[in-house]
Amino acid sequence: MSKKIGVLLAGCGVFDGSEIHEAVITLLAIDRAGAEAICIAPNIEQMQVVNHLTQKPVAEKRNVLVESARIARGKIRDLAHVSAADLDALVLPGGYGAAKNLSDFGIKGADATVQKEVQRILVELNAAGKPIGAICIAPATLTKALAHKHPEVTIGSDAGTADAIERMGGKHVHCTVEEIQVDHVNKLVTTPAYMLGPGIKDIALGIEKLVNQIVTMI
Amino acid sequence: MSKKIGVLLAGCGVFDGSEIHEAVITLLAIDRAGAEAICIAPNIEQMQVVNHLTQKPVAEKRNVLVESARIARGKIRDLAHVSAADLDALVLPGGYGAAKNLSDFGIKGADATVQKEVQRILVELNAAGKPIGAICIAPATLTKALAHKHPEVTIGSDAGTADAIERMGGKHVHCTVEEIQVDHVNKLVTTPAYMLGPGIKDIALGIEKLVNQIVTMI
Repeated sequence: MSKKIGVLLAGCGVFDGSEIHEAVITLLAIDRAGAEAICIAPNIEQMQVVNHLTQKPVAEKRNVLVESARIARGKIRDLAHVSAADLDALVLPGGYGAAKNLSDFGIKGADATVQKEVQRILVELNAAGKPIGAICIAPATLTKALAHKHPEVTIGSDAGTADAIERMGGKHVHCTVEEIQVDHVNKLVTTPAYMLGPGIKDIALGIEKLVNQIVTMI
Repeated sequence: MSKKIGVLLAGCGVFDGSEIHEAVITLLAIDRAGAEAICIAPNIEQMQVVNHLTQKPVAEKRNVLVESARIARGKIRDLAHVSAADLDALVLPGGYGAAKNLSDFGIKGADATVQKEVQRILVELNAAGKPIGAICIAPATLTKALAHKHPEVTIGSDAGTADAIERMGGKHVHCTVEEIQVDHVNKLVTTPAYMLGPGIKDIALGIEKLVNQIVTMI
């Protein structure tokens, strides 16, 4: 039986959903590590739809699960039907969707609310001692969900975001793009990815380390 | 000056656009090879929009350039404004979009017509002796565009598609997922990717070889 690592998607595209490069590199690293990726997304409407050419919001509605299915090639599960017992670990790729659809951190900062099914699965996994990875801006949503555990995470070096993480009860640790931050007590692994960039080969280094670290913690 | 490799996208999602894993692995391999990826897409309406959860077409309209911008993180050029002089090589990822939006091969088979700007750039690049890569089903569109040159390509082993390629004037060569087919006369490199699968780590092997081969041919 291979290890089952959930990949919690938040749509399809950096400005209103999951960052596509981060999500695909996560899936590739999981497969290369000999584990099985289980794509998952909440069945909810996106907070907004952004035209990625103009980078402006448009008057359109899209569903997070339906759009996430593009990254998953159709093989994806509704988060409402997934419990911690189904997974050995979970990874949250970044992109604005991780802070617009999985929570409203992108709008409300430290006063954010985490989407209820996202909150549930994160608390369940943490309580079961199962590792959780979060990439790019996703550690902010993870911190809010597990604030009572005072998570030690990184989003790179952005001062405003780091400050909001500390105000939510977390501890922020500066980190370069090819590095990971490991919270051994809470079994959390984070990496800055496109919070720092600069390019796809750079973010791949941190994401590959994150996935390999997660696998060793299962 | 780094080598400029165009990546011709056809939307965002395997069933109506570019296959996302193939596109991202192409971008990653180009960056790792020290070259610069230039994302490009035609500014046209998609042939259809497919709900990737149900895999059924829906009554919705999306633009190929706008949706491709999701994979490109907003940094993408309209194909109509790109000439062979701007590029050292071009790669076409697969997905149904490569046979629905870049041509209508997915509907008409050997009687397909290639989208006019796609036809133009492929003929221009070939005439300039610049290498072209095509992944998954994209070699079918490439064969139609360069039929007069009798391209030698692979789409893996699907008998119906291989037969259509031969009827369009190409030569089809069987190939496994981790292999590439190189047409040295026409400077074409092709690999089956998700025409064969089975998984993301398998298709990555062929795509990485394809990109590295393209770089050596520039």
